[in-house]
Amino acid sequence: MELAELTWPVVAALPRTTPIVFPIAALEQHGHHMPLFTDSLLLGEVIRRVKQLPVAGKVLFAPLQWLGNSHHHLDMPGTLSASPRVYLDLLRDLAENFLAHGFTRIAFVNGHGGNTTPSQQALFELRQKYRDRRDLMLLSLTYWDAAKPNEIIAGLTQKEMGHACEWETSMMLTIRPELVVGDLSAVTEVPFGTGGAPGYRGWTMPDRSEPGHIGSPAAATAEKGEALFRVFTAGVAAYLERMTSHAGHGWDV
Amino acid sequence: MELAELTWPVVAALPRTTPIVFPIAALEQHGHHMPLFTDSLLLGEVIRRVKQLPVAGKVLFAPLQWLGNSHHHLDMPGTLSASPRVYLDLLRDLAENFLAHGFTRIAFVNGHGGNTTPSQQALFELRQKYRDRRDLMLLSLTYWDAAKPNEIIAGLTQKEMGHACEWETSMMLTIRPELVVGDLSAVTEVPFGTGGAPGYRGWTMPDRSEPGHIGSPAAATAEKGEALFRVFTAGVAAYLERMTSHAGHGWDV
Amino acid sequence: MELAELTWPVVAALPRTTPIVFPIAALEQHGHHMPLFTDSLLLGEVIRRVKQLPVAGKVLFAPLQWLGNSHHHLDMPGTLSASPRVYLDLLRDLAENFLAHGFTRIAFVNGHGGNTTPSQQALFELRQKYRDRRDLMLLSLTYWDAAKPNEIIAGLTQKEMGHACEWETSMMLTIRPELVVGDLSAVTEVPFGTGGAPGYRGWTMPDRSEPGHIGSPAAATAEKGEALFRVFTAGVAAYLERMTSHAGHGWDV
Amino acid sequence: MELAELTWPVVAALPRTTPIVFPIAALEQHGHHMPLFTDSLLLGEVIRRVKQLPVAGKVLFAPLQWLGNSHHHLDMPGTLSASPRVYLDLLRDLAENFLAHGFTRIAFVNGHGGNTTPSQQALFELRQKYRDRRDLMLLSLTYWDAAKPNEIIAGLTQKEMGHACEWETSMMLTIRPELVVGDLSAVTEVPFGTGGAPGYRGWTMPDRSEPGHIGSPAAATAEKGEALFRVFTAGVAAYLERMTSHAGHGWDV
Amino acid sequence: MELAELTWPVVAALPRTTPIVFPIAALEQHGHHMPLFTDSLLLGEVIRRVKQLPVAGKVLFAPLQWLGNSHHHLDMPGTLSASPRVYLDLLRDLAENFLAHGFTRIAFVNGHGGNTTPSQQALFELRQKYRDRRDLMLLSLTYWDAAKPNEIIAGLTQKEMGHACEWETSMMLTIRPELVVGDLSAVTEVPFGTGGAPGYRGWTMPDRSEPGHIGSPAAATAEKGEALFRVFTAGVAAYLERMTSHAGHGWDV
Amino acid sequence: MELAELTWPVVAALPRTTPIVFPIAALEQHGHHMPLFTDSLLLGEVIRRVKQLPVAGKVLFAPLQWLGNSHHHLDMPGTLSASPRVYLDLLRDLAENFLAHGFTRIAFVNGHGGNTTPSQQALFELRQKYRDRRDLMLLSLTYWDAAKPNEIIAGLTQKEMGHACEWETSMMLTIRPELVVGDLSAVTEVPFGTGGAPGYRGWTMPDRSEPGHIGSPAAATAEKGEALFRVFTAGVAAYLERMTSHAGHGWDV
Repeated sequence: MELAELTWPVVAALPRTTPIVFPIAALEQHGHHMPLFTDSLLLGEVIRRVKQLPVAGKVLFAPLQWLGNSHHHLDMPGTLSASPRVYLDLLRDLAENFLAHGFTRIAFVNGHGGNTTPSQQALFELRQKYRDRRDLMLLSLTYWDAAKPNEIIAGLTQKEMGHACEWETSMMLTIRPELVVGDLSAVTEVPFGTGGAPGYRGWTMPDRSEPGHIGSPAAATAEKGEALFRVFTAGVAAYLERMTSHAGHGWDV
Repeated sequence: MELAELTWPVVAALPRTTPIVFPIAALEQHGHHMPLFTDSLLLGEVIRRVKQLPVAGKVLFAPLQWLGNSHHHLDMPGTLSASPRVYLDLLRDLAENFLAHGFTRIAFVNGHGGNTTPSQQALFELRQKYRDRRDLMLLSLTYWDAAKPNEIIAGLTQKEMGHACEWETSMMLTIRPELVVGDLSAVTEVPFGTGGAPGYRGWTMPDRSEPGHIGSPAAATAEKGEALFRVFTAGVAAYLERMTSHAGHGWDV
Repeated sequence: MELAELTWPVVAALPRTTPIVFPIAALEQHGHHMPLFTDSLLLGEVIRRVKQLPVAGKVLFAPLQWLGNSHHHLDMPGTLSASPRVYLDLLRDLAENFLAHGFTRIAFVNGHGGNTTPSQQALFELRQKYRDRRDLMLLSLTYWDAAKPNEIIAGLTQKEMGHACEWETSMMLTIRPELVVGDLSAVTEVPFGTGGAPGYRGWTMPDRSEPGHIGSPAAATAEKGEALFRVFTAGVAAYLERMTSHAGHGWDV
Repeated sequence: MELAELTWPVVAALPRTTPIVFPIAALEQHGHHMPLFTDSLLLGEVIRRVKQLPVAGKVLFAPLQWLGNSHHHLDMPGTLSASPRVYLDLLRDLAENFLAHGFTRIAFVNGHGGNTTPSQQALFELRQKYRDRRDLMLLSLTYWDAAKPNEIIAGLTQKEMGHACEWETSMMLTIRPELVVGDLSAVTEVPFGTGGAPGYRGWTMPDRSEPGHIGSPAAATAEKGEALFRVFTAGVAAYLERMTSHAGHGWDV
Repeated sequence: MELAELTWPVVAALPRTTPIVFPIAALEQHGHHMPLFTDSLLLGEVIRRVKQLPVAGKVLFAPLQWLGNSHHHLDMPGTLSASPRVYLDLLRDLAENFLAHGFTRIAFVNGHGGNTTPSQQALFELRQKYRDRRDLMLLSLTYWDAAKPNEIIAGLTQKEMGHACEWETSMMLTIRPELVVGDLSAVTEVPFGTGGAPGYRGWTMPDRSEPGHIGSPAAATAEKGEALFRVFTAGVAAYLERMTSHAGHGWDV
Repeated sequence: MELAELTWPVVAALPRTTPIVFPIAALEQHGHHMPLFTDSLLLGEVIRRVKQLPVAGKVLFAPLQWLGNSHHHLDMPGTLSASPRVYLDLLRDLAENFLAHGFTRIAFVNGHGGNTTPSQQALFELRQKYRDRRDLMLLSLTYWDAAKPNEIIAGLTQKEMGHACEWETSMMLTIRPELVVGDLSAVTEVPFGTGGAPGYRGWTMPDRSEPGHIGSPAAATAEKGEALFRVFTAGVAAYLERMTSHAGHGWDV
């Protein structure tokens, strides 16, 4: 179900256990070879494919919110980013718009690494604010955490998602190849680094990469992209299926 | 120029006087006969048409931000709205993303009545914050203020823009007729009222309309919609042309 | 009724439909020829005259709040201004002080252009916050919007209110001529400009006027001032009469 | 010097060591026998008398800000109060309006007990914010702390300032006797209590007094009021004299 | 009772009139001769001694919160301070954690001068927020206000508490003499100054003292320290006894 | 180096690359069998042991901040928690106190699961705020992420850290056995659940556990506790060693 295309009386008549899905992504620099809208285009494609599947009939999809938490990319012009606290508020507001009408199941499906921590912080805050509503199911899922492509797809160079990397570039080659510009084979690898693991290190993109990508864009192919879309789509769909079939109470989903 | 499709080095190379246009709209109830995404669809069509015109080559368009200031519609489920102060912050952030890189000309092109006051408040705040940058041109324009359809188009019932009204319904019939649902001829007129004029009255939609529309949807036709799109498109394009050709200093645009 | 002179038990005994009027103005630069308190003095005189009329017996007047939203004048020393968000909060607080006791009708009567957008924003926020109180009548009125002097008074040079202009200077000549300083005939006209119309442009006073006035002070006379006071007083009184006699529900006032 | 009556070029020409005085008071319940504007009227009279003295020529007086920190009186209708944090912001803004132009000496002269802690908190915050400006002199003075009436005036029943008490009622009898209503001799004493001394106890007026006064209004006379005004006026004037003649650096004033 | 050592079911079973004591201090510069933790060590010792007394059995002690409102000391490195508003929020949160479970008696026992105004501001705000809970007893007490050592202890040089002064240095010599460093006899007196009395002056430590102490550290002895601890401990214990035995309503404690 | 015991001139003389360690934990419910201070006691012991090691000579340790982000435990009385945004501000303030003096390396060493997301959010915000300081190393590390006990210690029942669980109870038995109350063998296991993995689910403790623990306390022994302390201490020490020996720039630590 597409929220955008419904009238309000139709929404008013929905069961309050209907899962509401908010796709959230970003508009931010993706190196010299990929467009600013990369995260939104890729998540948009994952969501488009999920909507072809049976689970889509049981879930209400909001339009993709392309404004993300991207201050770490602001040194590169063109990036649009909500301030960190504003982004927390924005996610809260989206959820509260439905919580106010008694809906109980909310999921942010995320396509941008910088949104992961804020979406958890926002859901933590929301759960506390509505602590007495025991039936709330407040979830976030970053799409590339929904599956393990390396266990399924042969030939991937990277072991994890980077930024404007083999994986993202491959997926863009699948859906919008004309937006991948320049000589890809000449784009040098930028290593992932440890990033303070097993802890966390605060960072901006210039701390990690001068051109703006992280990983191995030169290894990208449209075939890998198609395989990645299939794997991620299946993962997200399975997650929403679990959410839909859940009893609504308790910790397990 | 489409911001979404550019790479960051391309944006970095743009002249700092390039106007940046942020289309802003809403996802909110539009009565029993129109979809929640009405404002975003209509503004999106105006912008799409503007992009066909010569001025578009001199302007950088951000993607449409569909989350608006719609708390007055929150009684009707499905409406998504940023809290009033969060919306002010969001507009500020969008502008600052570019102001931080030295760009000087920002315009919000708006397609939702509830965004008008906040966009003025946000621009007021921004101008004060950057008071020492004398070359800033910070503008907002609601598209239906960009032209006077009644002086041009024959047969219009309404004298001004309402909500899910003759004008909006007509435009939707032009671009997405399948999203206009029910028997339009049976949708009764909801009068505009005075609304506290010549002052202002704080309101929520149930103060004004039980079904959620204001005006005369039954008078809508696809032909009127096409005429309205043409008039509004021309008005917005002319405004952007003025913005583009302006010297950048002083009060006149 | 003068709130300032009442005891609290008298206020406690008032009908909850009693309109509460908050006069709001500013203390800000008014060019080289007019005092900082111009807006407060002029609105104070309008209110003083309204209090002579019958409607005053049905309305409770708070003292004039002279601190306004005047950051756009801060480049000129002496201006006192609340920060934009603080001003929104201040207006909210004033209204809530009475809303908390069940009063339902609040009006800001405004004498400063910079307060117009914030008073609308504040009333919007208040209406949403108390969305379930269907009997609220939350109004703002800028006094020069309450009448059309050009249709009534002969000889006015300006078509609209400026700043430290023909109209304001005339009114000051009527009530406090000793506070109009310097050779008025030598004060050159500062044109209004378009200001981004039909859109809005964020501005500070140095964007528009170096001396600090906008319009034609040299055209001011005490006679014009008296005529303006009469017209505006009648307009404000008529508005309060409408507010007083209103049923309290619905959009019309 | 009256800020309200000056033009901005006159303010711009003042020495930056000119002390700026902000009189701050309240509009809040003062029992069954005294008007809501008591604090503002009394401080206004103190300031009016100070302005007759030589020190007034060296000091710039802002108009009295009647909106105070009065939430502890909000149970009694008619009270107007800024929210606690908004009041801190309002005081900060007033000071910053002048600090931004290089002025260095600011004093809040206060006539309301509820403003004492906030004015100290606000000055603390301001001093830290502008920590590198070593010449700042940021002061607050509550007028009844500026003198010790019991050591000077014979016949006072109270040892300290209360609320709508012997002292305040006496002063009101001096300047506006018609605003003291009812049979004063029948107003019973409300004892001061310990209030958690030598610590502090958070309170609202109903914690301390049902009618709204604290102290002994029945002991009030206009003669005592005149004597109190003289003592307090002298105290405030002496304080401003110290402020004016101070070198500007260091802890002593 | 030590909150830290209890399990939650034990706390859940406590009478709601049990006083909750929050010791609050600071980690901030204390001159060249005293450690950063001085305030926390000294208050900790006062609290440790109070816990030996009978009243301790009727009171629940939270652990000492060492992070204080110390921005006025931030010019000296090592100082840790919450921002002024954050400190207000932190105190509010501590109290609300217990207010939310129906507890009614809260006391901040304070060991840092910079916390005095904020603790009063925080309690003021809390009392207003929970204005309808008439049984709340919200208190703060700075330990050196709980007694008058000069009236009891012979030989004290100072008349009041300073900073890293005779009194504090004496107390440190009593409990942790190894943390008093350098040649104490060579530490010169820094006079108290008037500090804007009888008003208040916003300050940072460099406004008052270059080395960071105020008062006469050279006069410190361990014997004076022991005497001071005894006097202050008795004062705090007596205050808590009053709090414990109070009826809970009304202004007196 | 113990920050608490130093004087400010000693801190002022430290190299700006000295790592500053802020231990952060919580005071919150830990089931029926463990005290509220569990997290703080356990992290305190880890830090105490780290301080015995050579790395401690190169690092400056702040005192443990026991107030954590524990709103998810607030249903159980006794829990003390900063509001979510206040906790973000508090962490920011701690770091900024040192950043303001030019220090470049900050690490939060964390002993409470609820602090993990906020510490990352806070560091993200800090890094953006000081984006132009390229030498900043802003880190957080939760102590149980610093090692993999299951790969080293035989006999552990749990595979990961729970709450008041086998691991935490074991460690408490090692250092403060008298604070483990009741019949441990009778404490039933509370399973971990999926918690929305591979996504995140907003939760409060009653969503997961009625008694307040998660995991298998009955499996706890003091021997396991000692082994866990050794493993975690080594892990934290190794991390600080990496931090100390790092060049300061770049993503790797």
